[in-house]
Amino acid sequence: MSRKQDFYPEWREDPPKPGSYRSIFKWGDPKEYKHPNRRLYKLVKEEFGLTDEDFKSRKNEGDEIVELPNSPLKLQKQHIEAISGIVGEENISTRDYDRLKYSTGKTAEESRELREREIKEVADLIVHPRNKEDVQKIIVYCNEHKIPVYVYGGGSTVNFGFRPVMGGITLVMQTHMNKIVEMNERNHTCRVQAGMMGPAFEEVLNNAPEQFGTKHRFTGGHFPQSFEYSTVGGWIVTLGSGQQSSYFGDSYHLVIGQEWVTPRGNFETKTFIAEATGPKLNDIMKGCEGTFGVLVELTVKIFKWMPENQFPMCFIFPSWEKGVDAAREVSQGEFGMPGVFRLSDPEETSVALKLYGIEGTFLDTLMYLRGFKPMERCLLLSRTEGERGFAKNVLRKSKKVFRRFGGMSLTGYPVKEWEHSRYRDPYMREDLDDYGLTIDTLETSVTWENLHTIHRAVRSYVKSRPKTICMSHGSHFYSQGTNLYFIFFGKFDSLEEYRSFQKGIFDTILESGGSLSHHHGVGRMIAPWMEDYLGKEQMDVLRALKNHFDPRGIMNPGGQMGLDYGPEGLKNREWRIDWRGPRDPASLDAQ
Amino acid sequence: MSRKQDFYPEWREDPPKPGSYRSIFKWGDPKEYKHPNRRLYKLVKEEFGLTDEDFKSRKNEGDEIVELPNSPLKLQKQHIEAISGIVGEENISTRDYDRLKYSTGKTAEESRELREREIKEVADLIVHPRNKEDVQKIIVYCNEHKIPVYVYGGGSTVNFGFRPVMGGITLVMQTHMNKIVEMNERNHTCRVQAGMMGPAFEEVLNNAPEQFGTKHRFTGGHFPQSFEYSTVGGWIVTLGSGQQSSYFGDSYHLVIGQEWVTPRGNFETKTFIAEATGPKLNDIMKGCEGTFGVLVELTVKIFKWMPENQFPMCFIFPSWEKGVDAAREVSQGEFGMPGVFRLSDPEETSVALKLYGIEGTFLDTLMYLRGFKPMERCLLLSRTEGERGFAKNVLRKSKKVFRRFGGMSLTGYPVKEWEHSRYRDPYMREDLDDYGLTIDTLETSVTWENLHTIHRAVRSYVKSRPKTICMSHGSHFYSQGTNLYFIFFGKFDSLEEYRSFQKGIFDTILESGGSLSHHHGVGRMIAPWMEDYLGKEQMDVLRALKNHFDPRGIMNPGGQMGLDYGPEGLKNREWRIDWRGPRDPASLDAQ
Repeated sequence: MSRKQDFYPEWREDPPKPGSYRSIFKWGDPKEYKHPNRRLYKLVKEEFGLTDEDFKSRKNEGDEIVELPNSPLKLQKQHIEAISGIVGEENISTRDYDRLKYSTGKTAEESRELREREIKEVADLIVHPRNKEDVQKIIVYCNEHKIPVYVYGGGSTVNFGFRPVMGGITLVMQTHMNKIVEMNERNHTCRVQAGMMGPAFEEVLNNAPEQFGTKHRFTGGHFPQSFEYSTVGGWIVTLGSGQQSSYFGDSYHLVIGQEWVTPRGNFETKTFIAEATGPKLNDIMKGCEGTFGVLVELTVKIFKWMPENQFPMCFIFPSWEKGVDAAREVSQGEFGMPGVFRLSDPEETSVALKLYGIEGTFLDTLMYLRGFKPMERCLLLSRTEGERGFAKNVLRKSKKVFRRFGGMSLTGYPVKEWEHSRYRDPYMREDLDDYGLTIDTLETSVTWENLHTIHRAVRSYVKSRPKTICMSHGSHFYSQGTNLYFIFFGKFDSLEEYRSFQKGIFDTILESGGSLSHHHGVGRMIAPWMEDYLGKEQMDVLRALKNHFDPRGIMNPGGQMGLDYGPEGLKNREWRIDWRGPRDPASLDAQ
Repeated sequence: MSRKQDFYPEWREDPPKPGSYRSIFKWGDPKEYKHPNRRLYKLVKEEFGLTDEDFKSRKNEGDEIVELPNSPLKLQKQHIEAISGIVGEENISTRDYDRLKYSTGKTAEESRELREREIKEVADLIVHPRNKEDVQKIIVYCNEHKIPVYVYGGGSTVNFGFRPVMGGITLVMQTHMNKIVEMNERNHTCRVQAGMMGPAFEEVLNNAPEQFGTKHRFTGGHFPQSFEYSTVGGWIVTLGSGQQSSYFGDSYHLVIGQEWVTPRGNFETKTFIAEATGPKLNDIMKGCEGTFGVLVELTVKIFKWMPENQFPMCFIFPSWEKGVDAAREVSQGEFGMPGVFRLSDPEETSVALKLYGIEGTFLDTLMYLRGFKPMERCLLLSRTEGERGFAKNVLRKSKKVFRRFGGMSLTGYPVKEWEHSRYRDPYMREDLDDYGLTIDTLETSVTWENLHTIHRAVRSYVKSRPKTICMSHGSHFYSQGTNLYFIFFGKFDSLEEYRSFQKGIFDTILESGGSLSHHHGVGRMIAPWMEDYLGKEQMDVLRALKNHFDPRGIMNPGGQMGLDYGPEGLKNREWRIDWRGPRDPASLDAQ
């Protein structure tokens, strides 16, 4: 009998076949995987009313080799030759596989689209610029000929941020433009090309004494979950935040200077950490998501790297309310902020205790004996940063606050578990997806005052759908509020059903007063809500900027951020609607 | 014989006559004064080669009653009546005195202009809007009729920020629009009308328990030297910084939401502390200096008020280089920042020791015995903020760094002296001016790397003029750099001579790589350097925004920030040149 209960799905562990759809939609390293553990598997079956039978055969695994018979090249030969003349033919590609790969981000929808081979928009020409001069020449050429230009950074957008809706060319920044330009220990800054990947950047900073002869080791302080598959430039064009932002700040705070190539012209913003010479171009460019031009270099703050002062804290609270109050008290305490700071709500706590292997341990027993009840109790993980005395003060004072609000320490062990899995959880998506289960996330910035209202509203909407898991946590803390990060998990019969479910979440967030995004950006996914959210006057300002930088509309065209919608597109909350005309050749004039 | 040496000028202590020029240009409270002490008086005589004789009769004291026979009203009667119809006749004025008062800021030039009754541009109509609805109606009306609009906040601009170059109307925000809109303890924010003065705002925050029933006392954390004569709205439209900014942040960091009335329309920016929904309108409006519209309300961060944790530190360093290195080490130490943080260069240290009464005390003897030499040694003043454990850690770690770089503690006494005089030093200007001496300031943001280059270049330029004192200090510290605040002091024979001297300083700053302003803003004074500084591409972006918000050019027109220059004006570095045509009636159409 116990044998039967021990069934555990045959999750895939083989690397995807080169050239296959799976090799595009699979998260991360082809050879890496992380499976839902047995506790999570049990939970999934219970929650979704499934049995072991449902996990005996995988489907839509995407092992076929990519072919795009329905997506012929639409960019005229003369244009391809001209671009090739700029970057060299070794740096362009019109292969079907490359066209699809560099057109695909990491939304749950795209994964499903590729599994079902429902291929929509793909780029015509993939270009790997070697340097900023290449980018300049390409933008001048494309502007002259009205050829759409998209930019692929690390490829981990979760909102169709570089979806080549109009075809044209996609610039891949990570291939060549991935180097440190200047390490400046005295100024505590680093100048870097926009296409450098997160881990490569961080490694150089950690090893700066060996590589640049600096006195200290450094860190960039920016560690989003997509860290391994995102570029330094991508962090700021999307206004991203790392998981240690409560101490280091968001990319918004980290980037102090940028160099841009735009159809209107090129410029480097000033890199003074503070000045009073009018509205700052460095700010105006942050978060423009490729609609104003191409970010080629940036100057970011760096910090002394002191991992020895990362002291972990893990507390369990009797309720979400108590946990939130404690987190607010720490955030407003003026004794310094920890780096990692995450407070899970009851449903996420329940899953996390399974995922981190706490369920069934002595800690679990202790919680039970002390009266911390399942589906009421909330888990808080935190870890300090900074100089030793600073970090110890944050540790001491935070713990005091946590205890005052009824928290019980669970030792530092769960934080170690979280550290171990922080970049690995996304790997589970393929396993679940192989059996038709969808997991996805959305997030919204909240003030302390409206946190509970928004949390209740979103949960209420999600839970009104039967058999749907809704987890959430406060993920990035400030004295004025936090980010509510929601994770949805369910079985959806079709892409359409999932899209319609997701739209309801945006409606709910907007109606209950949250922001449309805290650090994922807008892309095309959230674009239809932008005008309702910001209001016409503010959208008009963004459109005026768009029109200034890119008067011919070549930069990331087709609904991005709602900047080039028509009224019909907006009304129907459908970013594709305006762009479904004939598009041959791939030039905007032909639309 | 000792009697003779004891001569001390008869500085004026009587309040200026109501209605007089002096009542306009005198700094601060009419009844307050602060005289140069005897040590400073002695220094002035020595440095400028003056004798007691030169201080026996004052000149150009501005005691005459204001009359503007050469500045007839140019705004048509129908417009005056229309505005009166909006705000009520008790809230408008066309009196000469009011017109001059609300057209005058606090530059050294304006003081001298008024003393010499060289009156240039004055507003036609002074308006005191009662609320944001009044402002909206006025802007709609003025936009329709192309009437120039200027905004007077606290009146302490040091760069002709609201100089009514084109006449028209000036809105005085402090009269009615000076109240707290919402105190939100939970969100740690306060919503305030733009015209609230600094001290009134801070007093409400300090007394929030009594006035709003909050649990804690609060502070806004923003204390510029102009604190007593500046408005909360003025802080952000000019991108100001307070003297405790190293801990609390600049106004740039403090303001999280703004409500604007512009000719294009009205809007409230979002007040989320962080979000990723495109370039942020809250940022785009910061520092626009009234050229985009009228700021009517804003939401700012507030902080728990804990003055009991303000621990003072004062150190003397053997050299400027050592002091700068120590300040950098603290700023990059990751143990938290102090609030007040000022490092004086050798010349300023020399004057400060006189001013704070340290010269001749046991501390002076101690410095002498320990070998800290005059015109080499540098004074550092600092004071902590925040929670007790945080503040004590900052204190302990900073002192350790200061000692490591050869610093010697001078006890907390000089900090107390500085605290006492922090808002009072500007009062000395009238005393000196009464005897024909000019004291003025300029400031520039620098990186650690170019700090010494810029410091040397500016000093070298200033000291090339005989008999001129040049003091400077690092005033606002960041891990990436600081602000160099320069104070110039000399005897100038004419306004023209002073202007020409000042222009050379901007040229020097620009050439040596500093920023044009750190926290004073641009106004009309620095405007001619803006395009050289930012480059055409970046100026074009600011112009595109200007054109979007204010297509008819009614907001603060006439050279502000260089946004509405003609090429001739720029070439001649002369902000007035374009606006010297006929201007009757005061409507832009008539230019």
